[in-house]
Amino acid sequence: MYGLIGKMIAAEGKRDDLIRILSEGTGSMPGCLSYIIASDPTDANAIWITEVWESKESHEASLKLPSVQAAIAKGRPMIAGFGERFITEPIGGYGLVKSKP
Amino acid sequence: MYGLIGKMIAAEGKRDDLIRILSEGTGSMPGCLSYIIASDPTDANAIWITEVWESKESHEASLKLPSVQAAIAKGRPMIAGFGERFITEPIGGYGLVKSKP
Repeated sequence: MYGLIGKMIAAEGKRDDLIRILSEGTGSMPGCLSYIIASDPTDANAIWITEVWESKESHEASLKLPSVQAAIAKGRPMIAGFGERFITEPIGGYGLVKSKP
Repeated sequence: MYGLIGKMIAAEGKRDDLIRILSEGTGSMPGCLSYIIASDPTDANAIWITEVWESKESHEASLKLPSVQAAIAKGRPMIAGFGERFITEPIGGYGLVKSKP
């Protein structure tokens, strides 16, 4: 499995809009086992995204999906920057859900 | 919802054992919506744990469960320390699974 933990910084006042865009379409991404979007209680503009994919390849393929491309195009103007980013190798646990084809 | 992203450092050579202990019992924790254990590909002793709970209270209550207390007692000697820790407010996404009672 392939995991990502990342912090995204929304443009001032745009966090809710950006979270809504990020939320659209999750669940219809092949190879996605978990994709959770959270706000940061210590920073009014920060968003945490934690992801688990079957493989690095399935994550990369998702970036080419029309629905994801559309979300990226729509969300990009609302992104002011990025914070921490960690790549992980998920082993197991609870909440890894095979997405429906 | 209440989220945690945290890095745990295992004692030298103990990461696999610690991951196994952490994995035992996840899924039978009331209020737990996601609990994913990952290794860090850049540090042979580091573990990332990403958690989503219904509330801060359900997380705190889980620490008192006998199964979790037992895991803590068993795992503690294998923990060398902790790294980054972030509290989040999960909004949604994919892979939030209500645990069975």
